[in-house]
Amino acid sequence: MSDIAGRIATQAGTCLLHQSHGGKGLLLGGLPAAERGRVVIIGGGTAGGNAAILAAAAGAEVVVFDVNRERLAAMRALGNNVTGLYPYPDIVAREVSRADLVIGAVLKTGARAPHVVTRQMISQMQAGSVVVDISVDQGGCMETTRPTTYDNPTYEVAGIIHFAVTNMPGAVPRTASQALSAALLPYVLALAQPDWKTCKPLARGINVEAGKVIHPALKEMFA
Amino acid sequence: MSDIAGRIATQAGTCLLHQSHGGKGLLLGGLPAAERGRVVIIGGGTAGGNAAILAAAAGAEVVVFDVNRERLAAMRALGNNVTGLYPYPDIVAREVSRADLVIGAVLKTGARAPHVVTRQMISQMQAGSVVVDISVDQGGCMETTRPTTYDNPTYEVAGIIHFAVTNMPGAVPRTASQALSAALLPYVLALAQPDWKTCKPLARGINVEAGKVIHPALKEMFA
Amino acid sequence: MSDIAGRIATQAGTCLLHQSHGGKGLLLGGLPAAERGRVVIIGGGTAGGNAAILAAAAGAEVVVFDVNRERLAAMRALGNNVTGLYPYPDIVAREVSRADLVIGAVLKTGARAPHVVTRQMISQMQAGSVVVDISVDQGGCMETTRPTTYDNPTYEVAGIIHFAVTNMPGAVPRTASQALSAALLPYVLALAQPDWKTCKPLARGINVEAGKVIHPALKEMFA
Amino acid sequence: MSDIAGRIATQAGTCLLHQSHGGKGLLLGGLPAAERGRVVIIGGGTAGGNAAILAAAAGAEVVVFDVNRERLAAMRALGNNVTGLYPYPDIVAREVSRADLVIGAVLKTGARAPHVVTRQMISQMQAGSVVVDISVDQGGCMETTRPTTYDNPTYEVAGIIHFAVTNMPGAVPRTASQALSAALLPYVLALAQPDWKTCKPLARGINVEAGKVIHPALKEMFA
Amino acid sequence: MSDIAGRIATQAGTCLLHQSHGGKGLLLGGLPAAERGRVVIIGGGTAGGNAAILAAAAGAEVVVFDVNRERLAAMRALGNNVTGLYPYPDIVAREVSRADLVIGAVLKTGARAPHVVTRQMISQMQAGSVVVDISVDQGGCMETTRPTTYDNPTYEVAGIIHFAVTNMPGAVPRTASQALSAALLPYVLALAQPDWKTCKPLARGINVEAGKVIHPALKEMFA
Amino acid sequence: MSDIAGRIATQAGTCLLHQSHGGKGLLLGGLPAAERGRVVIIGGGTAGGNAAILAAAAGAEVVVFDVNRERLAAMRALGNNVTGLYPYPDIVAREVSRADLVIGAVLKTGARAPHVVTRQMISQMQAGSVVVDISVDQGGCMETTRPTTYDNPTYEVAGIIHFAVTNMPGAVPRTASQALSAALLPYVLALAQPDWKTCKPLARGINVEAGKVIHPALKEMFA
Repeated sequence: MSDIAGRIATQAGTCLLHQSHGGKGLLLGGLPAAERGRVVIIGGGTAGGNAAILAAAAGAEVVVFDVNRERLAAMRALGNNVTGLYPYPDIVAREVSRADLVIGAVLKTGARAPHVVTRQMISQMQAGSVVVDISVDQGGCMETTRPTTYDNPTYEVAGIIHFAVTNMPGAVPRTASQALSAALLPYVLALAQPDWKTCKPLARGINVEAGKVIHPALKEMFA
Repeated sequence: MSDIAGRIATQAGTCLLHQSHGGKGLLLGGLPAAERGRVVIIGGGTAGGNAAILAAAAGAEVVVFDVNRERLAAMRALGNNVTGLYPYPDIVAREVSRADLVIGAVLKTGARAPHVVTRQMISQMQAGSVVVDISVDQGGCMETTRPTTYDNPTYEVAGIIHFAVTNMPGAVPRTASQALSAALLPYVLALAQPDWKTCKPLARGINVEAGKVIHPALKEMFA
Repeated sequence: MSDIAGRIATQAGTCLLHQSHGGKGLLLGGLPAAERGRVVIIGGGTAGGNAAILAAAAGAEVVVFDVNRERLAAMRALGNNVTGLYPYPDIVAREVSRADLVIGAVLKTGARAPHVVTRQMISQMQAGSVVVDISVDQGGCMETTRPTTYDNPTYEVAGIIHFAVTNMPGAVPRTASQALSAALLPYVLALAQPDWKTCKPLARGINVEAGKVIHPALKEMFA
Repeated sequence: MSDIAGRIATQAGTCLLHQSHGGKGLLLGGLPAAERGRVVIIGGGTAGGNAAILAAAAGAEVVVFDVNRERLAAMRALGNNVTGLYPYPDIVAREVSRADLVIGAVLKTGARAPHVVTRQMISQMQAGSVVVDISVDQGGCMETTRPTTYDNPTYEVAGIIHFAVTNMPGAVPRTASQALSAALLPYVLALAQPDWKTCKPLARGINVEAGKVIHPALKEMFA
Repeated sequence: MSDIAGRIATQAGTCLLHQSHGGKGLLLGGLPAAERGRVVIIGGGTAGGNAAILAAAAGAEVVVFDVNRERLAAMRALGNNVTGLYPYPDIVAREVSRADLVIGAVLKTGARAPHVVTRQMISQMQAGSVVVDISVDQGGCMETTRPTTYDNPTYEVAGIIHFAVTNMPGAVPRTASQALSAALLPYVLALAQPDWKTCKPLARGINVEAGKVIHPALKEMFA
Repeated sequence: MSDIAGRIATQAGTCLLHQSHGGKGLLLGGLPAAERGRVVIIGGGTAGGNAAILAAAAGAEVVVFDVNRERLAAMRALGNNVTGLYPYPDIVAREVSRADLVIGAVLKTGARAPHVVTRQMISQMQAGSVVVDISVDQGGCMETTRPTTYDNPTYEVAGIIHFAVTNMPGAVPRTASQALSAALLPYVLALAQPDWKTCKPLARGINVEAGKVIHPALKEMFA
């Protein structure tokens, strides 16, 4: 569901920048005679990559941070308005301070997300800017993240609007169920076979077996 | 300001399709393994054209209706997911019934917009679909349009969410003031000259002069 | 040769839609003031992918069915007029019924292609529509497919024009020989070595060895 | 109807290059490991421009000749595989001799088209190449052009396949009628008014009035 | 020749940014894991527009200043990495201070170019940055511009490399002569007619007639 | 650093084609009314691929030679002005003879580059054309290559300008250091671990160990 969450993140962030939603009153993507907004995305995996696709298509200036060069190259290839950079803390701080919209998308399977964006960095952003943290399900990759729901999706820290709904794809159940069933059906068919444990993705997905935590990342969390 | 209104229309419509905003729960633009949403735009002028630019970039299937062939060609050139069609009532009805998002952008200078989209057509749309009427300032080009404000921007008719804020660019004052001053400055400089009436766009803009309504469209309205 | 066959399929289908070739008289890709044709492609591998590249570039609305998510993502990335979907029978039936051109490209190495498109689905298409089955060499992925040659390439079933030439690349020998020699030369050089069986693609290509059928798919067919 | 004729020209030329239609056996647009075909278009107006759009999208190397710089710039903007050149006879001869497909699209309203491509130039083309002359309705812009019909659309001169059907849009009546009615409706509505002669495009369209030829181009032809 | 000069400006500026040519050692357009350079262009006419086309295609972040909204819209349409802005002096100063390459392209027919970029603005640029002034033939639009030749094309002011060759198209005589003859031939043919003064572009081009300066812009200069 | 070298190669080649740098006076990428230059690239790996990206974006006609089909497909996907071909000597000779700019990018890890472009082929090029050999660090892939430095970067053979600086990325230290540190940091962190030899890329990079040459390619060179 990361691809959906990434796209929701950009769509929600775009509308939250409207003054009517509390934002600074900026049109992401700009106009022929006006500046284009700046989007910073932390993490260029599936979630961050899908967020970048929509932000780039909308015409914003997009910066994606990732440690992996292949991902940076894939992000750069999305368009000439996308820059890929290695997440040195000082560069992250500089780019966050200039951003109109920051999207957190650091997802480590089953592990807590590191706080790549600190409270200090957030405090340097312009009032009315927006942050969306897709990593909220794993603790968030921003120090100021706390989980919210669609009933009350946003809160403010230092004048910055935060959107950190824990189940972002819940906003688009039609699209989600269509994409999900396409993604799961091969595994469902495999699960129905007696030798299902020979299917590596299924085997790797086992968290607890015979009463013992066996997933490496979970073991580390509970150690 | 039509270009801003057009872009706001697509951005607002995109978010209203989220279930959390009352919509049918659809991700406009779709996903690699899910259907793409359908956007129908009535009018391919500045407002409709800017709405189409964002909808096309987001990956939706876009149909634009206009009577002018040059405008249809310009719309078609926005991308291979944009179709331009002449607004025969039966074709409009068919396309509206299939649409997830309908944007009204029929703007006749100073005149009331015609009701291109009837209540009957709206009633054929799927529940949870969205209509946005940029023409609301001139009475709206949909029979079901009634003006709203950003305090309470939407209402429902027959299960269809309507967004018809009268001053749409008010959501993005930063971008708007930047674009507006760039657009107006040449005229301000011209107005400061004693011979300003020789500037045709200024002269054409006079609505009332020496106590008499002189703008052709207004005269017709008040006749 | 699958890439050539895929491109021939779209080119042949485009011309067969002309009324002068018996088709419904439709310009695939449309015009600024006319609808764009719909192309449905069964299978997003090399053959289907190449068919999709040309159909997307020509401006048609393209739907590609595949079970593999990576392939669907690659297809979606061809353009905003391409939709990728999982081949649930009811969705395939719906899309085929709306299509102007259906291209079958289900290729399982050495195995018979399944009948993804049934006679019933074909019968729901509009008269004068066209189907092209690249899978014909492996029995065809449409129930109505029967092999033809370039001497007499088409036949009609229920008003639908069928094109199922068994050796499609035979239409473009110049291009084919150029591409083929580039593809084969590395293997020819490997075959000339005494240890050629250590070259995995060559080893996997052996169908019959020392009088016994050893290729897994063939064994299944002859079992 | 020039836009339709231009698109038909490219589509027909593409298929005629197949060996099964008598052509040299070339895949226009090529493949990842094969050369791309060369298309030369004489005239970059509506007909030639639409031919160029499809040829460029298909991936061919396209050269368009025109005397008008704005048209050359519009053609160049279609893609990095399109070159625009002034039609000096020696340059036309050189490009025609290298072309796989030559499309004639020199349309002067109501006047005979000049013979930009001579029989000598055609004789320098490679056997199995194709020429399509959209200008055939006005005498053709190639010396070797003679009108044909869809019953027997092609003939050969010096090994080169000629396609010069006089009513090319007749192949796609569905698309044509849709586009035509959109284009004509405004004039039909104007014609129904008593002051229709004040509509300049209608007035300019009068060929014969009160028994006298009054259209300038026709007068020249009959002088 | 403005289109050639604009393209030469970007090409020369790109190489002057190499350290081996004295520049700051920056790759315009960047890399997957490195920042993209910033180009500021003063004037979005033919010269500036062509400079922008190449800078945008190379992947730089491009800002174009112009007073004309249509030009700004055309520039914005070149790509999502192009921003168009009205040339308020403070905005020009801010953007110049951030730029790696500034291209001056303010061309008023026959008139002196205004100094849009002041010495003060240039002094705020980073050492090793580059400015190219295409307007040099009309006095230059930067306060620090002085004419140079290809024998000694550059000089430094405050650590900024200046390139202001008076006849930039002289670097590409092959391309220039081809483009020039295509552009001039229609006028040459018109000049050869006795009624050549009825050709407006020719008539407007007369600077001096019967011993009197008659071109409006020149009259102003010599007044 | 291959990606930087590839981009420098195209940028340097573009400027060397200016007559002011000794070239034939051609604008790579052309103009709306002038021919586009031809670039031939030997090798479609990282270096050649990056050279191709910039050459394609600039609007040149680009031909890339490679033995690997996946690389040819990746090159073809860069744009419709890119052709990928297998390096048969006669085809290489033909394309080199037509080229305005030839870029050598044959890089075999640790091994001498083969002479794919012979002195004979170079002698068939038009005077004032340019060759850039990125492979110079490994002996060069052109028979006429000899190493140069940025102090004196070019020399002429048979009227053809040669650019073969051994450390091309040295021209852009800012960009290079940024990209390099992003690329190396993961390995630096790995090297600091006691079990660094379990990191395959590091282990594979060992050339000499305990006084013995152990890298396979180097062993072959010194055998």
